[in-house]
Parts: sequence; C-alpha cells; structure tokens
Amino acid sequence: MGEQEGRSVCLVIGAGAGIGGSVGARFAAEGYHAVLCRRSDEAGLLRLVEGIRRNGHDATGYLLDVAHDGAMEERIESVERDIGPIEVVVYNIGAQIGNRSLDETPHRTFELGWRLGTFGLFRVAKALFPRMVERGGGTVLVTSATAAVRGNAGQHSHAAAMGGRRLLCQTLNAEFAAQGIHVVHVLVDGAVDAPDTLGRMLGKDAFEALRAERGSRDALLRPDRMAETYLHLARQHRSAWTHEIDLRAWTDVPWFNSNGIGRSVAL
Amino acid sequence: MGEQEGRSVCLVIGAGAGIGGSVGARFAAEGYHAVLCRRSDEAGLLRLVEGIRRNGHDATGYLLDVAHDGAMEERIESVERDIGPIEVVVYNIGAQIGNRSLDETPHRTFELGWRLGTFGLFRVAKALFPRMVERGGGTVLVTSATAAVRGNAGQHSHAAAMGGRRLLCQTLNAEFAAQGIHVVHVLVDGAVDAPDTLGRMLGKDAFEALRAERGSRDALLRPDRMAETYLHLARQHRSAWTHEIDLRAWTDVPWFNSNGIGRSVAL
Amino acid sequence: MGEQEGRSVCLVIGAGAGIGGSVGARFAAEGYHAVLCRRSDEAGLLRLVEGIRRNGHDATGYLLDVAHDGAMEERIESVERDIGPIEVVVYNIGAQIGNRSLDETPHRTFELGWRLGTFGLFRVAKALFPRMVERGGGTVLVTSATAAVRGNAGQHSHAAAMGGRRLLCQTLNAEFAAQGIHVVHVLVDGAVDAPDTLGRMLGKDAFEALRAERGSRDALLRPDRMAETYLHLARQHRSAWTHEIDLRAWTDVPWFNSNGIGRSVAL
Amino acid sequence: MGEQEGRSVCLVIGAGAGIGGSVGARFAAEGYHAVLCRRSDEAGLLRLVEGIRRNGHDATGYLLDVAHDGAMEERIESVERDIGPIEVVVYNIGAQIGNRSLDETPHRTFELGWRLGTFGLFRVAKALFPRMVERGGGTVLVTSATAAVRGNAGQHSHAAAMGGRRLLCQTLNAEFAAQGIHVVHVLVDGAVDAPDTLGRMLGKDAFEALRAERGSRDALLRPDRMAETYLHLARQHRSAWTHEIDLRAWTDVPWFNSNGIGRSVAL
Repeated sequence: MGEQEGRSVCLVIGAGAGIGGSVGARFAAEGYHAVLCRRSDEAGLLRLVEGIRRNGHDATGYLLDVAHDGAMEERIESVERDIGPIEVVVYNIGAQIGNRSLDETPHRTFELGWRLGTFGLFRVAKALFPRMVERGGGTVLVTSATAAVRGNAGQHSHAAAMGGRRLLCQTLNAEFAAQGIHVVHVLVDGAVDAPDTLGRMLGKDAFEALRAERGSRDALLRPDRMAETYLHLARQHRSAWTHEIDLRAWTDVPWFNSNGIGRSVAL
Repeated sequence: MGEQEGRSVCLVIGAGAGIGGSVGARFAAEGYHAVLCRRSDEAGLLRLVEGIRRNGHDATGYLLDVAHDGAMEERIESVERDIGPIEVVVYNIGAQIGNRSLDETPHRTFELGWRLGTFGLFRVAKALFPRMVERGGGTVLVTSATAAVRGNAGQHSHAAAMGGRRLLCQTLNAEFAAQGIHVVHVLVDGAVDAPDTLGRMLGKDAFEALRAERGSRDALLRPDRMAETYLHLARQHRSAWTHEIDLRAWTDVPWFNSNGIGRSVAL
Repeated sequence: MGEQEGRSVCLVIGAGAGIGGSVGARFAAEGYHAVLCRRSDEAGLLRLVEGIRRNGHDATGYLLDVAHDGAMEERIESVERDIGPIEVVVYNIGAQIGNRSLDETPHRTFELGWRLGTFGLFRVAKALFPRMVERGGGTVLVTSATAAVRGNAGQHSHAAAMGGRRLLCQTLNAEFAAQGIHVVHVLVDGAVDAPDTLGRMLGKDAFEALRAERGSRDALLRPDRMAETYLHLARQHRSAWTHEIDLRAWTDVPWFNSNGIGRSVAL
Repeated sequence: MGEQEGRSVCLVIGAGAGIGGSVGARFAAEGYHAVLCRRSDEAGLLRLVEGIRRNGHDATGYLLDVAHDGAMEERIESVERDIGPIEVVVYNIGAQIGNRSLDETPHRTFELGWRLGTFGLFRVAKALFPRMVERGGGTVLVTSATAAVRGNAGQHSHAAAMGGRRLLCQTLNAEFAAQGIHVVHVLVDGAVDAPDTLGRMLGKDAFEALRAERGSRDALLRPDRMAETYLHLARQHRSAWTHEIDLRAWTDVPWFNSNGIGRSVAL
C-alpha cells in the first residue's frame, strides 16, 4: 500500500451497492483513496473495491460494525496511519427497518436505530474532528432521509434516530464550521435505485419490477447521479458552503406533500 | 390511599420546583391525583406533595431514575394498580447540561442525554399506550426545548436528544392519535423561573439576580402560568387537537431569531 | 348602543358560519362586544349577530370588503370611536379558492389572494397597532391554513398569500410583542365543519354527506371547540405566550404526512 | 445577433455586480447566451455584458422594470423570438430595503416588496412555463434570503414577500417538476460581496471596510463561487434534483441561530 500513503482519503461508512458505493467510486475517480466500510457481505465489498481498482483508481475495503464500540475509532486510527489523511467522510449509515408499529418495535430495536443513526456520527466526530481541525479542515457528507424532518406511522425508531442526527449535524457545524469542517445534511427524499438497501427491503422480484417501471424514466434516485452532487458539495469554496440540501427524483412528491402512499418504497 | 383508588392520575415525570411541580399542582386542583416523580431530592419532592395536599388535593411522590431500565415501567405498573388509571402524563425530563464543546462531551454524556430525552419517552409509550388504547385514550404533554428544533454551539447531546424526541412525538401521534391518545410537543422557548433547573444551572446568586431583573416584569416564563396552557391542552376536544405549541415570555426573542446571546440562561 | 360604549371589543374580520362566527360568539359570552365583519350575505351576518344577542351578549355586524382600500381602516376607526377599544382581533380571512393549475390562476386571482391573505393583515396592523401600543397591548389571532407552511399542487395563490402572512405574523411579533401585542398564528390543518367556507366550496350535498360521515365521530374540526383554544390564547399570561399553534381533528393526518389525498376537502 | 439565434438562453432577472452578474457570466462560459436584465444603471449593465463578450462568450443586456406590468412578459417574448429558447432563468430580484419599523413601512412599500419578490416570479412562470413544458423542461434558480424562512424585526415587507415566494416555488414544483421544470429555492443566508446590493445599502466606505475585514478570509459569500453551485443545480440529472439548498460563508452563523446582531449586513 506504500505508493498510496499520504493520498487523501474519502472514507465511506456504509458502502453498499447504492449511494455509498457510487459516491466512493466517484471520489476515487477524482484521485481520492476510497476506503469503503460496511457491516457484512465481504464478497459484495470486494466487488466494489475491485470495480474501482479496475478503473485505475485506489480503494480499500473493510468490514466494520458501527454499533460495536471502538471498532470505528480503530478503523479511523488505522486508515489515518496506514493510508492517508481522511479528508472526506461519507456517513451513509441508515437506520431504516421498514414500518413497524410501536408494538413491533422492541427497546433494543429503538436503541440500535440510535446507535447506528445518531451515536455513530457522534463517534466519528469525536474520533476524527481533532485531526481535521489540526489539518485546517475536512468534509462530512451525511446521507439522510425523509425521517430526519418528520415523523410518520411506523417510523418510531427511524425518525427518532434521524431527527436527532439532523440536529447533531447542526451542532457540529455550529462548533466546527469556522474551524474549517464542513458538515452537510443531505436529505434523500425518495426511493433510491440501490440493490443493497431498497432491493433487500423489497425482495428481488418487487425491486426488479419497480426498477422496470420507474427506473427507465429516471423516477428512482440514481446513485451515480447523486454522487455528482456529493462531489460538488465537497468541492464548494468555503465562502459559499451548503449545510442542507434535498435530493429527489423529478417525479417524486416531496416529504411535506406526502404520506408515503404512492411512495410505498420511500426510504 | 383507599379513597383515591380509581381517581384519574396525572403522572408527572420530572417534577421539580418549576414546570413539573406547577403542572402537577394545577391538575391536582382539577381533581386529578398528581403522581410526582423525580430522580433525587426527596425533601424537595415531599414539599411539593405536601403543598398540594395542604390545598386539599391529592398527590403522591416517588423518587424515580428514568435512566434506570425497568424503573419507569414498574412505577407505571404500580401507579395503575394502586392509585388509578393514568390519564395524563407530563413528560418533563430535560437533558440540558449547559453548553459543552464536543471535546467536553464524553460518549457517556451523549448517551445519557438520549436515555433521558428520547428513550425515556419511548419507554413510557411502550409501557402505557396499550393501557390507554384499551381505555379509549389519554394525553401526553411533553415539555420540550429550543434544542428540539435547531442545533446550536455546545448543544451536541441536548439537541440530538430533543430533536429525536420531537420526531418521536410525531410518530406516536401518527400511530395513536386516531386511537384517542393525544401527544403534544410543548416547545418551551426561553428561560423558565424554575429554581430546580435554571436555578441550579446558574447558581443561587445569579438566579436571584435574574429573577429580580426579569421576573418582576414577567420576562421569565412562569410555571404557574404555563400550567394553564398545559391544562388547556389536556382538555381540548378531540375535534380540535393541538400537537405542537410554543411558549415564551412576551419579551423573549424566538429561537429562529436568536443565537442565545442575550439569552444566556435559555433552557 | 350607548350602554355598550367603552366595552372591550373583539373584532372578527371574516365572520361566517364557521370559525369566525363561533369565536365571536365565544368572546361575546365572556363579556366582549363582538364586532362581526364579513364581505357579503347580510342575512347570514344578521343571524349571527342576533344569535349572540339572544343569549344576552353584545354584538354588532358590518359588511366589509377587506380588498377595498380604506374600508377596513374606516371600520376600525369607527368601532374604536363608537363601540369601544379593540382588544382582540380575529383575522379570519382565508384566500382558499380550491386547487387551480397555474393556467387557471390569472394574475388578478393571484393578486386578490395576496390582498386578502397578506396585505389585509398588514393593513390591520398599520391601523390598529399604534392604538394598541398606546393602551399597553392587545391580541391578534390569525386563522391560518396548511398552505401557510408548505406549497402543494394547485395552491399557487393560496400558498403564496398564506406563506407571506405567516412570516408577517413573525415580523409583527418581533417588533410588537415586547410592546404588549400578542399575535398568534393558528395553523388550522384540516377540514372545518363550516357551512360558509367548506360548505360553499363542496356544495350542499357533498358537505352534508361529509358531515354525516365524519362529523358524528368528531373527524371534522368543530368551530365551537376551536373557539375554546382561541379564547385560551387571548387569555394567556404575558409570561407564557404562544405564537404558533396547530389544530386538527384527532383523525386527521398532519400536513407533513399528507398530500391532500383522503383530505380532499382540506382547507 | 444572427449567429446566436437558437442558442440556449440563460435569462438573469436582476443582474447587477453580484450574484446576478456572476451567475450570468458563469453560464455564458458554458455556452449559454446570457441575457442580463436589471432595472437601472445602463452603464453598469453594459460593463457586465462587455466583460462577458471580452471573454469570447455571448451576452445581451436590457433594462427591465419587473414591477411594471407587461414589461417582463414582453422581454421573455422577444428573447425567445430573437435570441433563443430560455432554458435557465435566474430570478435574482430581492426586496430587501433594510430594517424598517411598521411605522416606516408605508402601504406602497409593502406592496412593492410583494410585486418584486413574489408576483414577479409568478409572472415569469405564467409567461414562460407553457413554452418550457412544450420543450420538455427548463430550470429556474431563485435567489432567496434568510427572510424567506423566518420573520425578524423590521422585515415586514421583505419577509412577507420572500416567505410567499418560497411557498410559490413549492407550488410550482408540485405542478411542473414532473413536466420537466426544475425550480430551486436557493437560500442565501449571509452577507454577499456584492457592490450593487450590499455595497449600496452600506455605502462605499462601510462596504470597503467590510470587504477588507471579512473578504480576505472568505467570510463574505463570493458571487463567483456561488455561481458554481448555481451551475451545478442547473446540471443535476432529473433522477436527483434539489429543490432547496442553503449557502453561507463558513464563518457565518445560520439563520436559526442568529438574530442578525453581529450580522448587521445580512441580506
């Protein structure tokens, strides 16, 4: 890994076949070393890493359980030591578990939502921001969801986790923006064409049917196109930073006009 | 306690000399049995209970650590069994710890904020809503803070907890409003004349100075006056329910016009 | 009218059989002289006034075209001179015209929406606030609608007017709250059981069918129940004022979860 | 102008030395014919147009009074006929007049704010959207201000106009997004280094002092950098559109943490 030492790193936490993988690949194409982390599916991770390398760009992959105390801190430490300074973090961990009534939401599920959705980002900031401040800056792109701005039926765990995370982004900016760290809350307000999240939630057949119906007319959010906006945000000049942005397909009704009906697959 | 059996209960979780104590007393004056719970200061708790009783109304007090798993569930169980059906809950647990930089906010502080601010309300709903649904309804009045709608410097733990809690209120209403449970998010947007919260945060002398300067012209939120609005909310007819309401002193600048400067005591 | 001179006046601008009429009657029952103004239907106005008087309370009615420059200013002047000081204003003028595409919304319709929805409230403030400041205070209760917080298909005129009005309420409070004038933005987020607005929009038969289906289970906002909250707001102590509050039937989905489907009659 | 016929046009309404001029130049550099419109200062307009042409790009300038009925409609008609199809509109008309108390805000000022801030955008949509729909799409980038999301002292006219405009953007998207028209509400939340707006408001000396103090450390929004984000928005793939985005300098406190103090030059 010698020749890559010192390369700027784009660390993707939550790198599946979807937003995480596409954004990682996009940053790699710009010269970043993409470090892709995900909880499971080593084969899928390898495919993403090799896809990036085949295009002549740099990538490394790790399995990482964000809910496991210490794991993320150790990974950040080792990436900084062995690969290079983490310039960009894409925090792409969702906490969506589908709609579940209160009765179907045990205490441990509610807690896990918080651990992944809220506490994980806090831990990244604790582990990484002192380094970023010392280096004069950094960028954190937080993939967020409709549930970050409004509750809805069955979203007890998800909305509490995402709503807390959105305000955490604001407190982090309040303390760190003027120290050069740029945190962006990216409100993904619609169904994403992502096999590893939406695909798993719907099942293979329903997902392919949805793709056939909506994908052909760009009526699903396309991760490769979203990646262009992620890249733009990371490149914004510090005189004109964005802290919150929404993204949805042209055909999608925004969250404030929607009850999820007709958007049954809304993430 | 025999003669009180079957009395409708107003359960106040977080009952100090401030909003909790005043709201409890106000509901007791309307005929509810006020059950006051707080984490510590048994003497203070006793004073509140005796104050209510001296006026000829019903009250009982318990020490209760919301962060302790199972404690709240047991208390709800025993109150329902021994005192009467809980018709109204006043969830008055804050998670304000003053402004602390990220560096001064350890993992355990962030987690405790969530445990008190967010998870505690979830646990109340889990323990109590099935009973309320069976009885055809109930009311939950959630005292909230500026930090529930926006992050700010030093509010990492507080804003994440309160922001999550606000959306939890929305998910609870989405599932339970049409089953008769009325959850209200009461956005207390200013300094409250409360010895047990603001008083402790500022220290005795600073608090008395503030009271002398602002209290005389009603420039601090008065808990006894706030209690009138809490009572009104609990009495709203189901054809015209409020789910979110703000409260501030007439002299106070609202959260969306304020950086906290000049409101150094903002809760 | 001599014996009423000097009575505190509650001026209702937009007093039909619905919110305006009910709120006027409620304040009259508390001892205010209710001055009811509406654009047309003198017979309907008379019925409201006589209904209040039959209960032994004070009321006067006027036809008033808010869109007509000078008319409102003259009315305020004459009420103050001939009846008594206006302590409470209920600004109950809507600008809802049903859903109309951009093509179906001529320039004059868009302008009329603004004239009724936004400019009218500004003109009330210009004409009345100097008097209220001199007297040490007053209350303005502004009936608002879902369209004040989000746009939606076909709401070009309505949403622009109401969105502007909501922020006008905030600017008025920013300047006048600390001078004792309490402006409340009441977000009525659902269908109201109001013959003179919803009834006319739907037509008699559809309205009666809706009432039969929803009214019996309190699934329409009831003006007489809403009036209790209006009264409470006017009575709030200045140490604990509300500036924004929502009202909806227990069965209604809030605006941030709704596209209007299933709420086809949403005002 | 023959050789330019048929070139895609970027129409900038409100093109001064600031956001409008910079965005126009940026789009011209990408091959658009920039059509720059402003109310007055023909010499300044000429300088902008010639600056673009000197770089080998296409631009035309017109004086245009947005408040004058019919003027904008005629200009859109003639541009479409003589220059080319308008693909992108930058609606950059502000309505900021500094802080003025209610007493200092005459009826005609309040109305002019609406005419420029709200009605003007409505008229653009009426005149242009049928053409855009016929062509399959278009982009409208609306420069907005802090006053679009919250009222504040002295902002009666400005906040009412901008708040209405923001919701108008939402109603336009609700009807036209799925027809290919992309409207973006760009919330410019801070002071812009713009001689023609901030410069005139502050006066030459104060503006130069501010620039000396803040510009050197990128603590003012730089129009040339903002233009990069405007361009990105116009290029977003329709599967991942943004409808609202904020922009502020890294050192600026966002609107929800600010009372304007310390941001005395906030636009």
